[in-house]
Amino acid sequence: MPIVQITVLAGRTVKQKRKIAQRVTDVLVEEAGTRREGITIAFHEVSKESYASGGILMADKEQK
Amino acid sequence: MPIVQITVLAGRTVKQKRKIAQRVTDVLVEEAGTRREGITIAFHEVSKESYASGGILMADKEQK
Amino acid sequence: MPIVQITVLAGRTVKQKRKIAQRVTDVLVEEAGTRREGITIAFHEVSKESYASGGILMADKEQK
Amino acid sequence: MPIVQITVLAGRTVKQKRKIAQRVTDVLVEEAGTRREGITIAFHEVSKESYASGGILMADKEQK
Amino acid sequence: MPIVQITVLAGRTVKQKRKIAQRVTDVLVEEAGTRREGITIAFHEVSKESYASGGILMADKEQK
Amino acid sequence: MPIVQITVLAGRTVKQKRKIAQRVTDVLVEEAGTRREGITIAFHEVSKESYASGGILMADKEQK
Repeated sequence: MPIVQITVLAGRTVKQKRKIAQRVTDVLVEEAGTRREGITIAFHEVSKESYASGGILMADKEQK
Repeated sequence: MPIVQITVLAGRTVKQKRKIAQRVTDVLVEEAGTRREGITIAFHEVSKESYASGGILMADKEQK
Repeated sequence: MPIVQITVLAGRTVKQKRKIAQRVTDVLVEEAGTRREGITIAFHEVSKESYASGGILMADKEQK
Repeated sequence: MPIVQITVLAGRTVKQKRKIAQRVTDVLVEEAGTRREGITIAFHEVSKESYASGGILMADKEQK
Repeated sequence: MPIVQITVLAGRTVKQKRKIAQRVTDVLVEEAGTRREGITIAFHEVSKESYASGGILMADKEQK
Repeated sequence: MPIVQITVLAGRTVKQKRKIAQRVTDVLVEEAGTRREGITIAFHEVSKESYASGGILMADKEQK
């Protein structure tokens, strides 16, 4: 019954999310022994202005 | 002082969120004995392409 | 299919969590029109040293 | 290696987020002794209709 | 740069978490085109008394 | 009224958390213009076996 919350930069296609959802679910079924139906995955999309690593917004990293 | 983070499919009306916020707060006050003012609730809305259960995106379930 | 993540101070009894889970699920079924089975709720318990409001840890508020 | 997830009302400027990201990262480097590069911060923006405290939506508080 | 937060029932072994972390990271590198080093995964373990689906705690489902 | 959820490796002292809570709250008051009382911060502590970056558990990185 895992809940998987994925925070990603906006811009992934539906095709990409479909594949990620399928394959992450496969991993949890195979490795954690959980029921397939009990796994929920949500993608939380944030903009480049709303995501930072090392104290620098993604939006600012790109400009360099 | 609970924090309630609710991930839902986009599309709930303001009326629905108002009612959910009120009633979930009531439940926490009554059952957990917490101060009303200390309870915060946030709705994180995701699209049907960003939510999967059982490895299948909501967007794909609907098409069947 | 909402996911409800509740961050609370540790110390709620099983009885309290059972009631909260039931009633919050009821609220979502009644107000958001979601299927009962699709609702998942997780309680994330944190200690008084791991929770602050207004910049002050709960542990420090109590000592006053 | 902390992950910082900040839920805020939408409407902060890029300038504000840039400063918050820098300074929160500084705090964690200085106080928790973590590597700067390992710190990730995400802002999850919600509307006034998606945020409540004390059981009342922000949108409703303003109207008063 | 995705952040993956996984809420699971406590009780997975280190071996299981190691495999899940590796394979979920693989999926994100292959399907989302993100840098391997930028991916962080955290497991938030909750007890059977702190996890409910369909309004019923896992602890109560087992007793049946 | 921001909610700040910080996922960190277990092992920070109360002193460290106190300072982080104070200073992160200061940052949000000063940069985002939010009321001090409305800011809540929770630390979610995870073990080295429950945290991975680049697909490798912290527990495994240390052994090298």
